[in-house]
Amino acid sequence: MGHNQLTNAGSLAPKFIMIQSRAQITVRYAETDMMGVVYHGSYLPWFEVGRTTLLKENGLSYRDLEAAGYLLPVLEVSVKYLKPARYDDVLTIVTTLAEKPILRIQLSYEVRRDDELLVTGQTSHAFIDREGRPVRPPANFTARMNELFSGRQP
Amino acid sequence: MGHNQLTNAGSLAPKFIMIQSRAQITVRYAETDMMGVVYHGSYLPWFEVGRTTLLKENGLSYRDLEAAGYLLPVLEVSVKYLKPARYDDVLTIVTTLAEKPILRIQLSYEVRRDDELLVTGQTSHAFIDREGRPVRPPANFTARMNELFSGRQP
Amino acid sequence: MGHNQLTNAGSLAPKFIMIQSRAQITVRYAETDMMGVVYHGSYLPWFEVGRTTLLKENGLSYRDLEAAGYLLPVLEVSVKYLKPARYDDVLTIVTTLAEKPILRIQLSYEVRRDDELLVTGQTSHAFIDREGRPVRPPANFTARMNELFSGRQP
Amino acid sequence: MGHNQLTNAGSLAPKFIMIQSRAQITVRYAETDMMGVVYHGSYLPWFEVGRTTLLKENGLSYRDLEAAGYLLPVLEVSVKYLKPARYDDVLTIVTTLAEKPILRIQLSYEVRRDDELLVTGQTSHAFIDREGRPVRPPANFTARMNELFSGRQP
Repeated sequence: MGHNQLTNAGSLAPKFIMIQSRAQITVRYAETDMMGVVYHGSYLPWFEVGRTTLLKENGLSYRDLEAAGYLLPVLEVSVKYLKPARYDDVLTIVTTLAEKPILRIQLSYEVRRDDELLVTGQTSHAFIDREGRPVRPPANFTARMNELFSGRQP
Repeated sequence: MGHNQLTNAGSLAPKFIMIQSRAQITVRYAETDMMGVVYHGSYLPWFEVGRTTLLKENGLSYRDLEAAGYLLPVLEVSVKYLKPARYDDVLTIVTTLAEKPILRIQLSYEVRRDDELLVTGQTSHAFIDREGRPVRPPANFTARMNELFSGRQP
Repeated sequence: MGHNQLTNAGSLAPKFIMIQSRAQITVRYAETDMMGVVYHGSYLPWFEVGRTTLLKENGLSYRDLEAAGYLLPVLEVSVKYLKPARYDDVLTIVTTLAEKPILRIQLSYEVRRDDELLVTGQTSHAFIDREGRPVRPPANFTARMNELFSGRQP
Repeated sequence: MGHNQLTNAGSLAPKFIMIQSRAQITVRYAETDMMGVVYHGSYLPWFEVGRTTLLKENGLSYRDLEAAGYLLPVLEVSVKYLKPARYDDVLTIVTTLAEKPILRIQLSYEVRRDDELLVTGQTSHAFIDREGRPVRPPANFTARMNELFSGRQP
């Protein structure tokens, strides 16, 4: 759980808690385009790597969620491209869950090459079942989120 | 030029002109994911098909622009997913250029399956040269945009 | 069925029948890489477009086959790259089923730009069910193949 | 250089040397398709990760080779799919250069999930320049290959 950023401004102040995770990827040749840099669409799978990692580091496997019948499709995505990433770059995907998810899960992303911020993005998600109907999050997901955002982590 | 939507609210009123284009694609198996529907990242290449078509239908080839040293990278993209598209669906990408581009080119997109609106999106772009420096649009691009947005089309 | 190539060398000679189909695609920017040409992996989705088209033109929808529980995964693929395709090229995928499929379905592909042969490939496939077990082809598939390869087409 | 497999059957016997490298990837959601498993085309970028790793582990950066004007396109690829890989699987790509490359570079690949062999493949490559003309390998590449296949590694 060492990747989580827990900030507590003092016992009397309201707590500000956010969950953050870092994943590292190396740019593949397939992820470039003829502009000579990374294709703008290639960042979406990396965001996905970011959120898979964030869930996993916090004890939740998206694979298991799906196996239990809970799907978490992307409802919205937005991306800003500040600087291009290039083939063979080692990049860090910083994924942040800033608020305890109620109906929607809102995640934000930064793609960094060392100190340089290359790309930022956001996604929002909601749980659906196999038939595509909106459903409440699974109990273990809700319990884990309550735990994480209470600041009472083991 | 039959795809352009030209609306002129009368000779005394300010003109409202927008450029619109329709492209058709059939969903490929490669564009789906294990959720059983189209992968959310697959829409970005379709938006690109949409803007390539819009430029081409208006006498501008993006291929020729690049050959002349003008690149038009994506600076921002946003997408809303309303309903899933599925393998083998025949989809229409409606691409709209609502304003004459000055520094930035702003495009919006609708992905439709017959009467159903599945996905909406926006991209913004600016011209750069091969070294990645911002540049003015090429003369033929500016001339064509002036022509299109003056309402004096051939 | 006009795309099928039926060659019958005479009533006494053995019949040589093959099923062939042509699909057209325009190269997308997303399908290129930093080499400035089409990424070598982009041809695999095009082969898939080719075989979907071949089945459809012969009255068989792969979508319907899957809906009925029959999956047709790729067991082997091979590709030879003779000349590069480029962004915005209009390409023809020529797909050929040279033999009546018994246990395996063997397809071959040519990717052409006008008269130029750019890429050749082969895939082989076999039907499985949703649990991944090998199964006999569905009855309508077998019936249609018998019909096509008998030369007694409507 | 610990990943190289050097087998020397004795000082009087001919030496059998091969260069081998292992790269690890975790399957991304984007790499699956509606069959519920990894899309067959997704293995090609993984082979590429394999050969980039093999070169890098042996002191050769493909990125630097390209920067120096040497491109190494895929001339042929073949793949056999034995068992499906699934989302979130941790896979090992074993890449082997079995012979000292003369005109062509021949690589083979195994995709493994622990002890299970899922997929095998081969690619062949040759150096070209930016204009697409066949060229001799760069001097540092040839020198390194001579060194590696002589068995006189540091």
